[in-house]
Amino acid sequence: MNSLKTVCTFTCLIVSNLFLSAEAPKVHSDGSVTFELIAPDAKSVQVDVKGRTGEENDGKPFDMVRGKDGKWTYTSAPLDPGFHYYFHFIDGYRIADSTNPLYFGWARLANGVEIPDPNLDCYLPRNVPRGEVSIRPYFSKITQSWRDAYIYTPPGYQKNLKKSYPVLYLQHGSGENQTSWSVQGYVGNIMDNMIADKQCVPMLVVMDQGYAYRPDAKLDENGRRENNFEELLVSEVIPMVEANYRVNANRKNRAVAGLSMGGGQALRIALTNLDTFSHLGCFSGGARNLSELVGDTKHLNRKLDLFWMACGTEDGGYQRNVEAHELLTASGVKHEFYAHPGTHEWQSWRRQLSVFAPKLFRN
Amino acid sequence: MNSLKTVCTFTCLIVSNLFLSAEAPKVHSDGSVTFELIAPDAKSVQVDVKGRTGEENDGKPFDMVRGKDGKWTYTSAPLDPGFHYYFHFIDGYRIADSTNPLYFGWARLANGVEIPDPNLDCYLPRNVPRGEVSIRPYFSKITQSWRDAYIYTPPGYQKNLKKSYPVLYLQHGSGENQTSWSVQGYVGNIMDNMIADKQCVPMLVVMDQGYAYRPDAKLDENGRRENNFEELLVSEVIPMVEANYRVNANRKNRAVAGLSMGGGQALRIALTNLDTFSHLGCFSGGARNLSELVGDTKHLNRKLDLFWMACGTEDGGYQRNVEAHELLTASGVKHEFYAHPGTHEWQSWRRQLSVFAPKLFRN
Repeated sequence: MNSLKTVCTFTCLIVSNLFLSAEAPKVHSDGSVTFELIAPDAKSVQVDVKGRTGEENDGKPFDMVRGKDGKWTYTSAPLDPGFHYYFHFIDGYRIADSTNPLYFGWARLANGVEIPDPNLDCYLPRNVPRGEVSIRPYFSKITQSWRDAYIYTPPGYQKNLKKSYPVLYLQHGSGENQTSWSVQGYVGNIMDNMIADKQCVPMLVVMDQGYAYRPDAKLDENGRRENNFEELLVSEVIPMVEANYRVNANRKNRAVAGLSMGGGQALRIALTNLDTFSHLGCFSGGARNLSELVGDTKHLNRKLDLFWMACGTEDGGYQRNVEAHELLTASGVKHEFYAHPGTHEWQSWRRQLSVFAPKLFRN
Repeated sequence: MNSLKTVCTFTCLIVSNLFLSAEAPKVHSDGSVTFELIAPDAKSVQVDVKGRTGEENDGKPFDMVRGKDGKWTYTSAPLDPGFHYYFHFIDGYRIADSTNPLYFGWARLANGVEIPDPNLDCYLPRNVPRGEVSIRPYFSKITQSWRDAYIYTPPGYQKNLKKSYPVLYLQHGSGENQTSWSVQGYVGNIMDNMIADKQCVPMLVVMDQGYAYRPDAKLDENGRRENNFEELLVSEVIPMVEANYRVNANRKNRAVAGLSMGGGQALRIALTNLDTFSHLGCFSGGARNLSELVGDTKHLNRKLDLFWMACGTEDGGYQRNVEAHELLTASGVKHEFYAHPGTHEWQSWRRQLSVFAPKLFRN
């Protein structure tokens, strides 16, 4: 337990403009972006921009053009507002530009660029009372390793000592991790702003890594290890949080939500632990066996104060979300389905959190 | 104030073995390390290992050797125990391997490798009560930007609500930032272990970025902007901490320390703010105008409960530290000088913190 090797090593980094030796991507007023990279000895340099790029590139990286002094440049078409992961390739090798900010996504550290959104500002920092995000180490019996939970505590938590709070357990998507909601999701800004505007009640937001493997994990038919995260959240994370923070440790004061893969996890966790959770949010996600999970509709309706689903109408999973919504409606499951313009990207999840959080812990 | 562009963007990342598509460096029992990188189309791949490498390379990167399938490898000589930053070069372009952990150092994100140390284990995680490191945003009037302070709170802080704590303000070195002490320094592990062993009193440790520039900062003769960090710590960070945390807001309960560049900052901050601080630690650092800073020796000795300097005997600055120690002795300044085997690397600073912290807040 005391070897650094067994630690799920975290690296927390600030990249400030003080230190940039390469140029940051230049975002133009129309949302197009000029990427630059100085590599005089490279034969080819590319940039791989994720999300909708406004060009038909079939997801392939764009070739950058070599200028004098070995500076390679590429200017994109206007990108969708919000957050876009990007990578460079140097002679075919996928790199992170370590002089610009990095975000955990695509199962590795990736660069990212932010396109201003005229229609959404909930995630921008404002001069309101600020909460904080705490990195809390705990030892998992399931994984036999140290893990870090990221825990948002609201403004006043450190000083308002008589108050206890409800908790939202909030999960990331595939290939991301416990840092993703607070870094590229700006959960701190969103919650601080909404609490300041009295749009939502002060709460803790607990973000953990949605992958948890036993050392002797079995492999499935695809060679994948069994993921015990759902068990870990209920049997290890919740007790750890309730032992260490001033929270209301009861069903009425626990919510679980997640995006994409994490939305499916949230569905399964809530619907199989109705004595533990009263609020459920599924952001751009779903579960194949939803009707099985729903089980006894009356019991479910009595237990869940909120069953909330959301999906962008341009999300590849939108139709499946509509079908799930219809299944729930046909089954008599009280729920809300929030459809909005948007793709399977962070701008949708920031928006969804800003619509979901105000509905929590109201009774 | 509400643009993401003005945010000192932080990226907090976990790289777990779950996601590695490249190999992690293999540390052998003798401390040598095999680095591997798959880049079939690269003409040349190098690895640049920082710290003492056991080879005469004058600080230049080592050439890696291309094997079949485009895998490049290099096995180092035995490295010094502790933490070594490293980079790769792909056809001359310095990269971060984004599938392995990254640490902020060398003014950018760098990879790092940890060599086990038979003589120091204070920084390894143990099954003791754990504190946490909180990321606290605040708006700086000096820099006119959002900044993040990293704040260690000890075990029990969240629950032991009647207690208030002393505070150590602890600074990183040149090219590092507010994340460095908690990530590569493992300040959380060190403090948790020492508090569990009753070697030091529970305290908060506040780590901020040691660079703070006014938007209209003047340039010095070398074209460098004036750094207002020392003013910012006293006029903005301390009030922010004391407004938001349960701390004892008086001189007796404030210490300031730092490593390398941060050691010089700590010296200047403490010696010019004797009504604010009672404890001072200078780790492998120094200040050119020390005798001026010392000023009235009697006054200094009355105000400072601890004036502590430390340096590794193999540190390039060791002789300057010995001279500073002699100057202080000759001037009648009560102080301690801790010399130990070690270089200008993190292993020395982990060690120094573990010797310094037990001396704090004892009266």
